[in-house]
Amino acid sequence: MQTDLEYAQQLDAQDDLASYRAAFVHDDDLIYMDGNSLGRLPRATVERMGAAVEQEWGHELIRGWHHGWYDAPQRIGDKIARLLGAGSGQVLACDSTSTNLFKLVLAALALRPERRRIVSDTLNFPSDLYIVQGCIDLLGGHHELVLAPSSDGMRVEQAALANLIDEQTALVTLSHVVFKSGFLYDMAAVTARAHEVGALVLWDLSHSAGVVPIGLDACGADFAVGCCYKYLNGGPGAPAYLYVRRDLQEQARSPIWGWFGQAAPFAFGLEYQPAAGIQRFLAGTPPMLSLLAIEPALDILLEAGVERMREKSIRLTEHAIKLYDALLVPAGYTLGTPRESHERGAHVSVRHPEGYRINRALIQELKVLPDFRDPDNIRLGLAPLTTSFTDVWHTVERLRRAVDQRLYLRYPAERLAVT
Amino acid sequence: MQTDLEYAQQLDAQDDLASYRAAFVHDDDLIYMDGNSLGRLPRATVERMGAAVEQEWGHELIRGWHHGWYDAPQRIGDKIARLLGAGSGQVLACDSTSTNLFKLVLAALALRPERRRIVSDTLNFPSDLYIVQGCIDLLGGHHELVLAPSSDGMRVEQAALANLIDEQTALVTLSHVVFKSGFLYDMAAVTARAHEVGALVLWDLSHSAGVVPIGLDACGADFAVGCCYKYLNGGPGAPAYLYVRRDLQEQARSPIWGWFGQAAPFAFGLEYQPAAGIQRFLAGTPPMLSLLAIEPALDILLEAGVERMREKSIRLTEHAIKLYDALLVPAGYTLGTPRESHERGAHVSVRHPEGYRINRALIQELKVLPDFRDPDNIRLGLAPLTTSFTDVWHTVERLRRAVDQRLYLRYPAERLAVT
Repeated sequence: MQTDLEYAQQLDAQDDLASYRAAFVHDDDLIYMDGNSLGRLPRATVERMGAAVEQEWGHELIRGWHHGWYDAPQRIGDKIARLLGAGSGQVLACDSTSTNLFKLVLAALALRPERRRIVSDTLNFPSDLYIVQGCIDLLGGHHELVLAPSSDGMRVEQAALANLIDEQTALVTLSHVVFKSGFLYDMAAVTARAHEVGALVLWDLSHSAGVVPIGLDACGADFAVGCCYKYLNGGPGAPAYLYVRRDLQEQARSPIWGWFGQAAPFAFGLEYQPAAGIQRFLAGTPPMLSLLAIEPALDILLEAGVERMREKSIRLTEHAIKLYDALLVPAGYTLGTPRESHERGAHVSVRHPEGYRINRALIQELKVLPDFRDPDNIRLGLAPLTTSFTDVWHTVERLRRAVDQRLYLRYPAERLAVT
Repeated sequence: MQTDLEYAQQLDAQDDLASYRAAFVHDDDLIYMDGNSLGRLPRATVERMGAAVEQEWGHELIRGWHHGWYDAPQRIGDKIARLLGAGSGQVLACDSTSTNLFKLVLAALALRPERRRIVSDTLNFPSDLYIVQGCIDLLGGHHELVLAPSSDGMRVEQAALANLIDEQTALVTLSHVVFKSGFLYDMAAVTARAHEVGALVLWDLSHSAGVVPIGLDACGADFAVGCCYKYLNGGPGAPAYLYVRRDLQEQARSPIWGWFGQAAPFAFGLEYQPAAGIQRFLAGTPPMLSLLAIEPALDILLEAGVERMREKSIRLTEHAIKLYDALLVPAGYTLGTPRESHERGAHVSVRHPEGYRINRALIQELKVLPDFRDPDNIRLGLAPLTTSFTDVWHTVERLRRAVDQRLYLRYPAERLAVT
């Protein structure tokens, strides 16, 4: 039966990406379902970081800047670009997602000085909305942020969103994949709608990069940002990335006039001149150890290929939903993720009134590490290269067991400060 | 004689900080004079980074945020604070110096909305001036940046500076130690002068932290920023820090409304509310590996103590100047650093018309790694815990030899892209 462990094992045996699992550090007795919050550590990164610290910092010392440090934001950015469907010279690895979003929101608003509307949705990362709110405040409070609603808490209807995008709209900024539900936007359709009325579009790719094919260049997206610590396996708080479409680069400017974005940073002139091309979107000196830690994983992801990862990702999420239907519905769970693959990224959310305590039970005694988002949302992040079909089976079985055996009752419902 | 190698060796033998040298990675055949650009690697950091990567990221995975990651900006900030003469809860380790400066310049200008003057000097880091220029542009170009001049290219006269600080001045922003000449400002005097007319003060401590006692709290400074990759030995491009005086924290706001500065980042509310205290000045997710790499060095520096490091630093720079007088003046060098210790940080600049090529000769064949700043400035960064008096002697002897033997003629005068 398709809901048996044996079937999951069979799917693993037929999985042509299964061998990549060994490229990452694993503990045999822990099932990790949080690759959408912090991706696993590639074995190659252990070696790379050892060399970066001991050889490059320790012995190359300041000369390291000549030997792969100075151009790291561009070099690593170009590798990320290949995962985003973007040509080279349009992506930088730098700063945090929030800071990059701040830079690009202000760059975009400056390109549409007469327009005062910014469109997003209620399912976007709150962190992204905060940044937009801060930009509006900084510019004097003359812009309005309007949020497309979600009728089911899971997806945003294209029509409702399209209605908000009007001739007054400077910028549409959305998460390509919604962090709670995993809803996947039709990037081409939304971008086309925005361009139709002369608005710019900024996509947050944090939950789609590495698992969903993204045609940034093909759909003519203007700007994008995203983090490297989820499916890109770049490490805790890894520097983020930003994308600026090539033909916007000479008009657009970062508000943070940092010396790494200066035309001639080592001439030490007293007047800022932005560098040509994407480089002008760099700010200060990049955190090199964290930046270099991103690179080995990108090489692995690029070798595996986005199309193959997406194909497995769909099969993983479909498998999870099939198991949900059979095992979790009877235990009082509901599905927090769209059933249609074309509307879904790489994670599956299951909701339960006791979700928080169930999640605690999974972590504390059932050796599963998922992710929880208030009020009732257990997210299962299925990373194509490190999650097996067997992992999914065991997770669903334990989600069921946590309810059947009332294991969650052992845990308080009070939230911990950091989850 | 005080200019002999034997005398230098004697000073090393009597140096009670000499034992700290072994706490850092060294190559026996390289004299490193660039601790003011990238401080040496502490041996303890090698071990710390191994654990951060393999144990914390690899095995703790997302749980690492509970175990020392989430509070790292504050914890490490509090350690830095002790080097800056600041009480706890006023310093964060985060972002880059440029981004922190951007946040605090805008925070300061918002606190003085009626004032339109910003005062700095022509010897400040150009990177700091760029950030200020960008802030002015972002706010609509209504502020003016005025720069106190330097008559000798080395120091700024207090009177000339004081004259520029008037009732229209919102902010005075200066480097505590000037990056080219090593000139050390009288922080208390300048801060008092600014406060006299109601202006705020923002200090860049990049070249003084770790080598000069800094009484931020004692002199009532308002804001400060600085980098961790110079004398703080935090690693290439290490995250920087920022200081906001406690009683300004509730009035001041960062323009980057990041989720790490939010009051309740895991409540996922849609409206930004700044956190209480210094935390509100955090932006996005911190680059954890680079951040954790800072900490071991701080523990070493705090154990050695700022006063002892300053005392040795003065003796190192005095020794260098004595050797300069004896050996380098006859070879056509001039001194680019004040002779009075109370006007000087921890580096000594020697200038020579062929400085660029001499610097190349030092690096390429004389096994000395100094730092060069256009047009003619060779900087000798003397880090109290890792530079010996013997290092200084050998460096000066080789600077002399590079001229006497015309070794520099073997190198082109064309600048490399990155120096």
